[in-house]
Amino acid sequence: MAGIIEPRTLSGFMELLPQDQVVFEKIKNQLEKIYLQYGFYPLDTPILEDSRILLAKAGGETEKQIYRFTKGDTDLTMRFDLTVPLAKYVAKNYSDLTFPFRRYQIGKVYRGERAQRGRFREFYQADIDIIGDGKLSIINDAEIPSIIYSIFTGIGIDEFIIHINNRKVLNGLFSLLNIKDYSADIMRTIDKIEKIGRENVKAEILDMGVSEDAIDKILETITFKGSKEDILNYLGQFTGKDETFDTGLEELTSVVNNIKGFGVPDEYVMIDLAIARGLDYYTGTVYETFITGHPEYGSVCSGGRYDNLAEYYTKKSLPGVGISIGLTRLFHVLSDNGFLNRKHENPIDVLVIPVSDQVENALTVATAFRAAGINTAVYTETAKLKKKLTYANKLAIPFSVFINEESAENVELKNMESGDQVTISVDEAISQILAAKAELGKEKFVEMKK
Amino acid sequence: MAGIIEPRTLSGFMELLPQDQVVFEKIKNQLEKIYLQYGFYPLDTPILEDSRILLAKAGGETEKQIYRFTKGDTDLTMRFDLTVPLAKYVAKNYSDLTFPFRRYQIGKVYRGERAQRGRFREFYQADIDIIGDGKLSIINDAEIPSIIYSIFTGIGIDEFIIHINNRKVLNGLFSLLNIKDYSADIMRTIDKIEKIGRENVKAEILDMGVSEDAIDKILETITFKGSKEDILNYLGQFTGKDETFDTGLEELTSVVNNIKGFGVPDEYVMIDLAIARGLDYYTGTVYETFITGHPEYGSVCSGGRYDNLAEYYTKKSLPGVGISIGLTRLFHVLSDNGFLNRKHENPIDVLVIPVSDQVENALTVATAFRAAGINTAVYTETAKLKKKLTYANKLAIPFSVFINEESAENVELKNMESGDQVTISVDEAISQILAAKAELGKEKFVEMKK
Repeated sequence: MAGIIEPRTLSGFMELLPQDQVVFEKIKNQLEKIYLQYGFYPLDTPILEDSRILLAKAGGETEKQIYRFTKGDTDLTMRFDLTVPLAKYVAKNYSDLTFPFRRYQIGKVYRGERAQRGRFREFYQADIDIIGDGKLSIINDAEIPSIIYSIFTGIGIDEFIIHINNRKVLNGLFSLLNIKDYSADIMRTIDKIEKIGRENVKAEILDMGVSEDAIDKILETITFKGSKEDILNYLGQFTGKDETFDTGLEELTSVVNNIKGFGVPDEYVMIDLAIARGLDYYTGTVYETFITGHPEYGSVCSGGRYDNLAEYYTKKSLPGVGISIGLTRLFHVLSDNGFLNRKHENPIDVLVIPVSDQVENALTVATAFRAAGINTAVYTETAKLKKKLTYANKLAIPFSVFINEESAENVELKNMESGDQVTISVDEAISQILAAKAELGKEKFVEMKK
Repeated sequence: MAGIIEPRTLSGFMELLPQDQVVFEKIKNQLEKIYLQYGFYPLDTPILEDSRILLAKAGGETEKQIYRFTKGDTDLTMRFDLTVPLAKYVAKNYSDLTFPFRRYQIGKVYRGERAQRGRFREFYQADIDIIGDGKLSIINDAEIPSIIYSIFTGIGIDEFIIHINNRKVLNGLFSLLNIKDYSADIMRTIDKIEKIGRENVKAEILDMGVSEDAIDKILETITFKGSKEDILNYLGQFTGKDETFDTGLEELTSVVNNIKGFGVPDEYVMIDLAIARGLDYYTGTVYETFITGHPEYGSVCSGGRYDNLAEYYTKKSLPGVGISIGLTRLFHVLSDNGFLNRKHENPIDVLVIPVSDQVENALTVATAFRAAGINTAVYTETAKLKKKLTYANKLAIPFSVFINEESAENVELKNMESGDQVTISVDEAISQILAAKAELGKEKFVEMKK
């Protein structure tokens, strides 16, 4: 042997300790559960694809950040998002799919960005999309916020606001102010308003050659404050002048009205005319989600409506609406701020401890526990009793069960937190452990401090 | 737009249609459930690692098959198994782990092999390992078959046999026959006995320069047929002559005896002295699992005991025992042979259909269904009723619910299979749908034809 290689993990690649991984998995499972409840199909696509497929659209910035290489005569790229693979998938399997096609995908994506704290090169995205064939009802745009609401309240993030806008409203506004040619640039600038402030946004747009009057009207509009009704009423002043604007306002109104029907409390949703989602990709409704009191985390769930998912792979018109959660980053933020509920960090319900070296009874009891759906570890190493208990304590296993050589019928059940110890039957032990497990199941995975 | 790029997926990369993906996910979840029941922690390691780490041991064959490239000045490799990353992980986090450390990992690995039917370049492995610090009780080796048993019966594969051997028995035998120097070569040859037959194995070993007497003794031993007791008795003749052999026989006996304690029916386990698991890596117990009547599928779950997990990354002695299931290949075999239970191919429990364009009542009902844990899709597109029903039929959704404009209290529930339709309250509908879901939950994911 030549010697020891220092074991390290690449920077920008999240690799969790076991107790953190448990919480991560529970959050990931919760997302899947909600996606399934909303009628989405799971999907899994390769991490490696032909570069021609993944880079059909990509511009300069994407090219720089990707992991791309050749093997044999194949030019390969590691996927940098889940949207491009979805576009390929839907175009490829068009005739086998039933539309609207609703799919979720939770998977790793790769971006070779400069590594820095909180930025990852390998990270999970959790995406859902609803794809129509030729058309897709605006009701779907109203369903998305209810999914976001269920996801975040489901994992324990209770205070957040979903910001909604419609790109057609902005585009229409630019059009009726005769500054349509600057739309894309203005939107990119508007997107930065939280970061750089109103005055700097104004200066940047002035530099483009847009008149001060037009800028003021835009800034007045996008920073107009009020209830959803107030904002919709305010926007009413522009109707009848531009078709795109009118469509946008109609869509926005429909989305806002239908969100209630999906059971989302009013205070979780706001119209925010200042969010534009820089990407050209979006064509209608757009979403961003901010945790209340924590604008510094950025949007934790974003997305929107697009007219054409797969234009690079098919001539079919495939409009859709979707959102994406950057799960690795979200977990990092929650963990880093001490917001994870530590009660969830252990996956084992009970440790079965044979008090002597005879393990047969312990195995019988463990088998009964597992059959009852209890996650059971058996301590089968030769060790003093104290060491066995230390194992349970270190792993924060809630119960230990001591098994002697005489009986596999009665056991000593020890609650590791309270220290209480009782002699009971295996069936009674099962009941107590399952009851505690059910209690834990009610605990959310995240506890935001007030 | 320059034109359409044909959407394709790289050969050797499994990409399933939605209905197949659903079954795949359910099988994967079942594996996770069982691993958790046996007290294993989830683990997730990066797909990309520093090449120095992943290739610390790798020989020529591995080098050829890997996906390796450089980005900037980093030499990167996509993981080709889950064992090397585990070794790195345990060495790296040694002081933060509690031993025995039990972990499962289900993840994709990459091998750039020549693509052929049933061979994949990207595929899931589902691994478990139990790692000791300095030592690890042989009882763990007896627990592994009970996990294999729970996994396979859990997904619906009822007829299989776990073949067990111990490398020390074979090594000891070679030693006491004075042919120790040929051990590795002989084991590799023995591993092929099913494929090439006894006579060819004999010829190959003769070519190595081993005496015919020794070969005959070895072949007599490894092909000796009988019950576990018969084989252990037969092996008794060699005891007292070689320490390694004696230890191996003791371990094998202990494993076989303790397997019963873990609740595995006798007929699912056999001693098979002919399996050697060619890899040098294993040092004691070895396992292979064959589906009864289908030797052509090869071993669907293999593994064994090793003395030292992480010798390339730490001087600590970390013995362990583990198994791996090639999940992608297993799924391919089951699917290809029509063994998947098609009742599991749809993830949606009910389709809510508004009979008019008014969707509000439909949304209210859908929200109630979801709160009850029912996977609910709402058909919100503008379409004729017939088209809406076609959607439910195409997706094989078991129930449709029709909602009119008058009431969100009473609904028309239609059983899509029987065609029965009843007007009932939302609560009653929930009960019926949940009952059907519970029935489906009893169905296994795999149905092997007799």
